[in-house]
Amino acid sequence: MPQTHKDDRLTSYCFEELEVGMSAEYRRRITGADVTQFAEVSGDINPLHLDAEFAGRTMFEGKIVHGMYGAGMISAVIGTCLPGPGCVYLSQSLRFLAPVRVGDEVVASARVVELFPEKHRARMKTQCHVIETLVIDGEALILVPTCAELEAITTTG
Amino acid sequence: MPQTHKDDRLTSYCFEELEVGMSAEYRRRITGADVTQFAEVSGDINPLHLDAEFAGRTMFEGKIVHGMYGAGMISAVIGTCLPGPGCVYLSQSLRFLAPVRVGDEVVASARVVELFPEKHRARMKTQCHVIETLVIDGEALILVPTCAELEAITTTG
Repeated sequence: MPQTHKDDRLTSYCFEELEVGMSAEYRRRITGADVTQFAEVSGDINPLHLDAEFAGRTMFEGKIVHGMYGAGMISAVIGTCLPGPGCVYLSQSLRFLAPVRVGDEVVASARVVELFPEKHRARMKTQCHVIETLVIDGEALILVPTCAELEAITTTG
Repeated sequence: MPQTHKDDRLTSYCFEELEVGMSAEYRRRITGADVTQFAEVSGDINPLHLDAEFAGRTMFEGKIVHGMYGAGMISAVIGTCLPGPGCVYLSQSLRFLAPVRVGDEVVASARVVELFPEKHRARMKTQCHVIETLVIDGEALILVPTCAELEAITTTG
């Protein structure tokens, strides 16, 4: 009997279900261990993120979280919530507007701002906030499966 | 006695040292453990990256590495090599052009394409290749410390 792929943390939308204005978010309080792990996996061992003494001498006056960490969280919103599994990431722009510190709760959000029915693409506004401060602003372009395509992907038999 | 910050894997350039055409790269063969770790740290648990059965039903016909993984490697080039520690990431654009598979060696590169002396900014072409396939294309805008500023940041004592 066919079963639909299920994971409480995963939601998939097909193109026909999307509407301008739909949005989703992913929250995470960033720990020092998260930053160390991101440095290891990305190779970005810039001491601005790892070395309190070095970072203390910069304009940031202390360690900050990798800007690309927030980008990873935007990818999480798009890849797990909206549109979710089955979609294809085409492009992303990122403006890094303010630093994120260890201990900050980052809220990554994505909102559908334009739909292109011929090509099944969605343009999404993507942001990261720490409380009310916009720390990353940008846009993503996503290829979204049709409902028929999504059913073929998510149904196991 | 003053000491300059030293790490074999870290190089810093100040704005006055940069020239159009300078480039650097960071290579890494991506393992399954890398992908699992990136999923954990970013929260992007999209089964396209983790679940062979799900991914096998998509247009990619198998698991692929997170697009944002390559973005992290671009951040590594900029944050550790060129311009390296002391610089500030202002913006990044990313076009995801082809999938990366576990086991692929990704070469992330950054090249100075334009310098803005008034604002000490560098525009950099940023790419990721797997062998000769361009998998990510884009640009970064970086705020680069002057030589005097960099000396103040990197000199301890």
